[in-house]
Amino acid sequence: MHPRIVEVRKNVLRKNDLLAHDLRAIFERARVFVTSLVSSPGAGKTALLEQTLGSLSQEFRVATLVGDLATDRDARRLAQAGGLVRQITTGTVCHLDADMVRTALDGWDLDALDFLFVENVGNLVCPSSYDLGENLRVVLLSVTEGEDKPLKYPTIFHSADLAVITKTDLAAAVDFDWDAARANIQEVRPGMETLEVSARTGAGLQHWVARLRERRGDAKT
Amino acid sequence: MHPRIVEVRKNVLRKNDLLAHDLRAIFERARVFVTSLVSSPGAGKTALLEQTLGSLSQEFRVATLVGDLATDRDARRLAQAGGLVRQITTGTVCHLDADMVRTALDGWDLDALDFLFVENVGNLVCPSSYDLGENLRVVLLSVTEGEDKPLKYPTIFHSADLAVITKTDLAAAVDFDWDAARANIQEVRPGMETLEVSARTGAGLQHWVARLRERRGDAKT
Repeated sequence: MHPRIVEVRKNVLRKNDLLAHDLRAIFERARVFVTSLVSSPGAGKTALLEQTLGSLSQEFRVATLVGDLATDRDARRLAQAGGLVRQITTGTVCHLDADMVRTALDGWDLDALDFLFVENVGNLVCPSSYDLGENLRVVLLSVTEGEDKPLKYPTIFHSADLAVITKTDLAAAVDFDWDAARANIQEVRPGMETLEVSARTGAGLQHWVARLRERRGDAKT
Repeated sequence: MHPRIVEVRKNVLRKNDLLAHDLRAIFERARVFVTSLVSSPGAGKTALLEQTLGSLSQEFRVATLVGDLATDRDARRLAQAGGLVRQITTGTVCHLDADMVRTALDGWDLDALDFLFVENVGNLVCPSSYDLGENLRVVLLSVTEGEDKPLKYPTIFHSADLAVITKTDLAAAVDFDWDAARANIQEVRPGMETLEVSARTGAGLQHWVARLRERRGDAKT
């Protein structure tokens, strides 16, 4: 990378860390549990969120911020699923940052929320450096992307707290090597919990939602 | 984006454009046809290149540069397929630039090549702004990513010359909407030629390779 870019980027990241630190304190005071989702484009973040909101919103107060370069398609999809939804349009920027999240929250009463989800721009590189003040960062890996992605994009897997393997209904069709995928995740992020879901068939969704509820409970005690 | 980042980035892009301009002249003098491939992680760039190199290397002199954040897995895969292969490891940088390409070509006799392929880092955002001096930029869209990706990542589709829809053997399994996908590509990049391939079954590969040969012929006349 160009040396001047590196220098400016370091300052930007430092500022982002401070903002994220403030956000985290705000979320904690409001007792809202914040989960961010990162993945490649098309790994199924929105499909997983649709199911998640549909399930959680029956019992909890939920809200979602959705990042995209262009269009509000995902926000419109998620608005059908439950809770408050707001779009963050990033233009040419390849990730969300803490300031975008803070700005997007303007006017929302965080005290009135139990869960806040933040869907990042589809990108396995840029979001890794930007703390958003979340309690839980989830990285999605769809079976159709291949088992080697954790090794090829280690920073994003390293920055995450939980991995979710998605589109498991297609695993047989693509000869997905489960052992290799799990080994590659563990190589990059030893000990990281890994769940498996299919938003299409519903397989694994109950377990995923149960884990979110547990993680929220752990964070509150 | 942070104003200082925007300013520095403009300078970096200007420098990249100049370098890419020089590279393009070098490629033209050497009469080597340069094709770059961009896509999401796991859309099948390497699988398509494996088949492409296997086919072209029987008749032409081919070489490939492969960009990745980490690992030389793709370079090792492609080395089996035919021709010269060299890895560019970008660390945390989310795209290739003209300087990385120029550096990676060091010591290769371009006059002794007919085709040069450049596989970019898997990313639907960052590579769009960086001209690599290529004759042809190909954007891949796998059927498993969903038909809406051209609308959600318009800059990368807009910067490309040719679209290739990959993993067509999985189209039925994911209910891929061909009309919507084609309409979305045309909305972002009117008139862009779109091919369809399955590296797994071989469907469409002959046509893809034939189009590369034709495009090379057109560029030489």
